[in-house]
Amino acid sequence: MLSKNISFLLLLMLNVVFAQEKKPSYAIAIHGGAGVIPKTMPDSVKNKYIEGLEFALKEGSAMLAQGRSGLDVVEHVVRILEDNPLFNAGKGAVFAADGSHELDASIMNGKTLACGSVAGVKTIKNPISLARLVMEKTPHVFLTGSGADAFGKEMKVEIVDQKYFDDSVRYEQWKKANSKTDPNEKKGTVGCVVLDKEGNLYAATSTGGMTNKRIGRVGDTPVIGAGTYAKNATCAVSCTGTGEEFIRYAVAHSVSALMEYKNLTLEESANQIIHGTLKKGDGGLIAVDKGGNVAMIFNSPGMFRGTANSEGRFEIKIWE
Amino acid sequence: MLSKNISFLLLLMLNVVFAQEKKPSYAIAIHGGAGVIPKTMPDSVKNKYIEGLEFALKEGSAMLAQGRSGLDVVEHVVRILEDNPLFNAGKGAVFAADGSHELDASIMNGKTLACGSVAGVKTIKNPISLARLVMEKTPHVFLTGSGADAFGKEMKVEIVDQKYFDDSVRYEQWKKANSKTDPNEKKGTVGCVVLDKEGNLYAATSTGGMTNKRIGRVGDTPVIGAGTYAKNATCAVSCTGTGEEFIRYAVAHSVSALMEYKNLTLEESANQIIHGTLKKGDGGLIAVDKGGNVAMIFNSPGMFRGTANSEGRFEIKIWE
Repeated sequence: MLSKNISFLLLLMLNVVFAQEKKPSYAIAIHGGAGVIPKTMPDSVKNKYIEGLEFALKEGSAMLAQGRSGLDVVEHVVRILEDNPLFNAGKGAVFAADGSHELDASIMNGKTLACGSVAGVKTIKNPISLARLVMEKTPHVFLTGSGADAFGKEMKVEIVDQKYFDDSVRYEQWKKANSKTDPNEKKGTVGCVVLDKEGNLYAATSTGGMTNKRIGRVGDTPVIGAGTYAKNATCAVSCTGTGEEFIRYAVAHSVSALMEYKNLTLEESANQIIHGTLKKGDGGLIAVDKGGNVAMIFNSPGMFRGTANSEGRFEIKIWE
Repeated sequence: MLSKNISFLLLLMLNVVFAQEKKPSYAIAIHGGAGVIPKTMPDSVKNKYIEGLEFALKEGSAMLAQGRSGLDVVEHVVRILEDNPLFNAGKGAVFAADGSHELDASIMNGKTLACGSVAGVKTIKNPISLARLVMEKTPHVFLTGSGADAFGKEMKVEIVDQKYFDDSVRYEQWKKANSKTDPNEKKGTVGCVVLDKEGNLYAATSTGGMTNKRIGRVGDTPVIGAGTYAKNATCAVSCTGTGEEFIRYAVAHSVSALMEYKNLTLEESANQIIHGTLKKGDGGLIAVDKGGNVAMIFNSPGMFRGTANSEGRFEIKIWE
């Protein structure tokens, strides 16, 4: 009887160890922005967000399961989120002070540390794809303003009129449904980080900036080391929140540096920066490490987010 | 005889310890860019560089000795270097691909982590002062392009025509005198870091970009964490070199992170990044810590630089 109990306990312990140590062959996390997300939003609206995140996460997971490069995955997933008017990036980009739209994006390859960013583009349908072209087709990593738009034209990416970004039916629905929401609060970002089957890490982030922002203002999204960072030896990170704070603390690079220089885990590093360094309400981040561990940490009331991996994990969350 | 010898040795040892431990009440370092600086340059040209650096360093040291804020010092010193046509910043800004000039600058306060950056400005005589105004007069940290120029106009900073940056007599002299110098090699930056008498650290960096650069290309200079970083707990850093590499490795923040997370000294941290992480020829940095220790490390053939402190140190160097 005793030995049976002991065998059972041993089996249970082995099981726990096995479950903890099984390293996913791929993992993905996405975000659709952090901030004040009213819990009073009608289910119909909430469901739209969840559907949008679910679709992006399913597409990304399926590509990873097929063994596609993580670089293609982060670009594709961020394009999906850019094309969804619910999120403040691409199609759903907010209005700047003069009623125009200026978009920023960045992407980074954790294997090579190659990276690309664009800031203040006005005519590029999918800024994340332009950021990838900066990385792959120029000797530079960062292009801004009309020079970046001109580069997009040269590269024959899809060019749109500014009006394309105006037509945000779902945002209007959401605004009407949540009249207490201060449109000045509207910021937000979308992002994706992955570990692919090759064992490589990638990060991508895209934003429409802050509502009513001063023309030319750039936040952390296109700043490598602030809003985006990826390094195979440590982690891939995509941030969302008050960009100025994320720049000041070099948030994405700090998470990587804590892992590299202080041997903290991904979770510990992300917690230290989001809950120890930043102020409450500043925002959050998603991150993945080479072991397939995912951190989704925020100090704001909510963060649209989701994660999936090769072991069947698949979850979407807004609050908690 | 023996005891006399021992007394002498003890005195000598005490002296060494005392000299090593005497903490300067202020310290300053400046740079005027790193790169291929031909040792064949005529003495008359070399002397102009040395005079330019000496003047900036003397001004900065005098202000620090008077107890002026390090913030005023780094701004003033970088303005002097911006106004000197020998250096690729302000007046001496290089020509971009379309024959225009685009200037970038950033500044950071190590006590508060307040920071400000401008990128791609075309009409601002002293970009470093505009970066300071972004830090002090806006809720933002980073303004780019025409929005940044417009902000300068609002703030009533000195506005100049693009032609102001064209007239670079000393650069022409230097080019003629060094016909082997490939103008495509012309990059460079100016920067200043200080520890002031209040014990605060500040960093400032300014550049005219790369010769023939694509319009809109931004390097590390205005990227907080890449070209500039300051944090009282660690150090103040200003970088110069191939901006893309400095962004990729978040160089300025990495030096700070190695001190903070790995307890390395300033010298060890700077050496690890410049000689261990970057490639030969990428460039260099100047940095100062709260103890008044200064590092001026580079992996290119030369770096225009100088340092001074309250203990009478005053040196200007180009090669070595």
